[in-house]
Amino acid sequence: MARNTQVAADHNAPLVTQILAEFVATHPGYRAGGWSAAVDHEAHRTFMNWLGCAVGAARHEALEAALAAVNLLQPAAQASVLGRPEKVDMASAALLNGISSHTFDFDDTHLKTIIHPAGPVASSVLALAEHTKASGRDVIDALVIGIDVSCRVGNAMYPEHYDRGWHITGSTGTLGAAAACARLLKLDTQQTAMALGIAASQPVGMREQFGTMTKPFHPGAAARAGLMSALLASQGFTASPKALEAPRGMMQTVSTKNDWLEITGELGQRFEISFNSYKPFACGIVIHPSIDACAQLREIFAKEGIAPEQVERIELKVHSLVLELTGKKEPVDGLQAKFSVYHGCAAGLTFGHAAEEEFSDEIVNRADMVTLRRKVVATVDDSIDEASADVTAVLKGGRRVHVFVKHAIGSLENPMTDAQLEAKFHGLTDALLGAARSSALIGACWALGDSADVTALAALATARA
Amino acid sequence: MARNTQVAADHNAPLVTQILAEFVATHPGYRAGGWSAAVDHEAHRTFMNWLGCAVGAARHEALEAALAAVNLLQPAAQASVLGRPEKVDMASAALLNGISSHTFDFDDTHLKTIIHPAGPVASSVLALAEHTKASGRDVIDALVIGIDVSCRVGNAMYPEHYDRGWHITGSTGTLGAAAACARLLKLDTQQTAMALGIAASQPVGMREQFGTMTKPFHPGAAARAGLMSALLASQGFTASPKALEAPRGMMQTVSTKNDWLEITGELGQRFEISFNSYKPFACGIVIHPSIDACAQLREIFAKEGIAPEQVERIELKVHSLVLELTGKKEPVDGLQAKFSVYHGCAAGLTFGHAAEEEFSDEIVNRADMVTLRRKVVATVDDSIDEASADVTAVLKGGRRVHVFVKHAIGSLENPMTDAQLEAKFHGLTDALLGAARSSALIGACWALGDSADVTALAALATARA
Repeated sequence: MARNTQVAADHNAPLVTQILAEFVATHPGYRAGGWSAAVDHEAHRTFMNWLGCAVGAARHEALEAALAAVNLLQPAAQASVLGRPEKVDMASAALLNGISSHTFDFDDTHLKTIIHPAGPVASSVLALAEHTKASGRDVIDALVIGIDVSCRVGNAMYPEHYDRGWHITGSTGTLGAAAACARLLKLDTQQTAMALGIAASQPVGMREQFGTMTKPFHPGAAARAGLMSALLASQGFTASPKALEAPRGMMQTVSTKNDWLEITGELGQRFEISFNSYKPFACGIVIHPSIDACAQLREIFAKEGIAPEQVERIELKVHSLVLELTGKKEPVDGLQAKFSVYHGCAAGLTFGHAAEEEFSDEIVNRADMVTLRRKVVATVDDSIDEASADVTAVLKGGRRVHVFVKHAIGSLENPMTDAQLEAKFHGLTDALLGAARSSALIGACWALGDSADVTALAALATARA
Repeated sequence: MARNTQVAADHNAPLVTQILAEFVATHPGYRAGGWSAAVDHEAHRTFMNWLGCAVGAARHEALEAALAAVNLLQPAAQASVLGRPEKVDMASAALLNGISSHTFDFDDTHLKTIIHPAGPVASSVLALAEHTKASGRDVIDALVIGIDVSCRVGNAMYPEHYDRGWHITGSTGTLGAAAACARLLKLDTQQTAMALGIAASQPVGMREQFGTMTKPFHPGAAARAGLMSALLASQGFTASPKALEAPRGMMQTVSTKNDWLEITGELGQRFEISFNSYKPFACGIVIHPSIDACAQLREIFAKEGIAPEQVERIELKVHSLVLELTGKKEPVDGLQAKFSVYHGCAAGLTFGHAAEEEFSDEIVNRADMVTLRRKVVATVDDSIDEASADVTAVLKGGRRVHVFVKHAIGSLENPMTDAQLEAKFHGLTDALLGAARSSALIGACWALGDSADVTALAALATARA
């Protein structure tokens, strides 16, 4: 796929985050030493002027609407933190469940855009639905429609928006969450437009955060912001009715590519959730073909009696995006390993799979894994699709064993089966909920569209205190 | 000042916000009619896969940290909604006070960047300080330092970032609020860097929202996001230590102009709060010179006995930015009138001033005001600075009365005095708090830097139930 990054990145920027952090944390900040009396007086003027403005507008309809929306979050024990005993207000539940669902980088992927659509959408939907005791049918409907909105906006802006630095899951996710929650709240068209408009001012997420907790924070923050946008709209809060498409609206501000037909074409006929996929491996999707290829190598080795020690070198050829996203050569922990195609290859070759356990700090730092990943020599070949991988094991003595993976397991062409999804679910939840409860929860998931009330499912998904 | 907008705006985009709103609000969304059984099954797979991922990570340290931060907001009656009797959690107070402080568009302006710095920073600081019973000294320090951070980042990116469509108050405000709250929480350098990093993923605000409630929502949402970023960092949440400056970090993602020296130069010596200004008029800063000029015309008219009916035409020459931001010719209400230089001229000529009252729906729609604003003929002249205005009243019979305002009242060169600020404060607060209480609050503001505990000031700023 054609890519061009419009403005050359500046790789020589000074470390301004650190410089500002030192300034903020350590500047003495006292009139006598840190700054002049004039600066200090200006601070008082600034504070007083701000305070007067805030008091003055205290009864404005904008504040009445916003306060009414905030009050919908009280009292606070409204929705479940999944996998735990705590209940929190629904906006915080959206945030927290959005974070946890993306923490393992094991969630779903809309492959056309690399959006992980459920994180923002399902997290906001379940939190709101649990509090409002919505039906399972309404939850499914909101999910389909919310995911359609975020992925269609993503289709319109991808790849320029993503190339520029946006974590597209968070930046489009706010819109998807707002759409889903507006739907669940049964807002009318006008209020729904306002919900989308308020959400349009809150795109979340920069790719620089990959490998830190702020990456999974993105879908969580998007879920929260989308839910709040719908709640604000339900209380009469207003936004521009052209907040997405106007010249100074969201889409033109965060992307120079905007293919509007991706939004309007076949709307209500083609549903983007049809193109959703699920990860068999607990890491960035672009590593999957490489893991799959190395797992296939492992099978060949087993069949032919080749020991791992005989491997001199793994030659890996992949699309440039793979190394751009997951080129960490020496990951120091599990989180970093999720962005290391080198670790992915070592895991595939050693275990034949790569679930969350294979991204534990312990395994990432195991001596044999470190040795093996250092044998991986990755080169860029943009004639290879980013969904494929070309792997050759070069053995001592010079023999070459070659595997080419066109479509990795979990891709649209080679999807996980329902049974594989159930096995993946058990692998994730048994330790926290027990196997029996996990099975019951799986049953509740399949029956969700017919259930009268989603609260029973939510209760099953929580752990005893 | 030189400006260039990198990519031509698309003024012919379809109305996708409305199209999506209709789709979300009205699509039947039932398996039997709205979409195929395959789509519905995919929705169940998506939901189950998401749920398993969320449960699976329920005990991850990222979720522990995020839940701990959310729990800091409970129980909820932590901080005052200014001018009202309610108390809410501190994050909601930051949101609400940020909204109200910018609702009248009457707050402060950092003229180099058109940032309204107090909205995000002071709103987050006072909410946190009230809950933690911080000293007034710590509040002032946090205010100076938070405003320095947001305005320095703004200086680095302005004007490209703003031209592109970002409401720079919200986009840099999250960082300023995070810095101020990190300071107030006495986070160390490492945690402060994380707070700035988490905030960097949450720039808020598009210019398309001007004229709607979502414009004042921007500083509110930035205040809330910045406060939460600091709370998250205090509980061990992590982000990239290069989240601002990296090629895929915030600044390079949202701006193609990044002058790093604006951040690092004279840090701790030059304080951007010194360049803050306060509005005498309750509307966008770029209208002020035009209002001031028309108010001066009014004085000339009064002196010379010229009646308003004698005015045939008002010729207004201003920088292109003025019409770009405030070119609404036929405002239908007070909120829109704040973005109408035409209404501003009519108010200046009629009243000699333009406080909140002169932007009421009633006055905006008064027949004489409508007649007068339609007499204003605005033309662009980029040789005139955006802080100036050239106004000529053409009278019946052909006489021309000319006023040129180089620096409007409220500008850095012609600042409001402390006494004028106090009068402005009374004008905003007397109706809500009473004159005596407003005077006491003014006293508390001037004494803030010496006060042991900010809660007394916060209590004065609330209304009785």
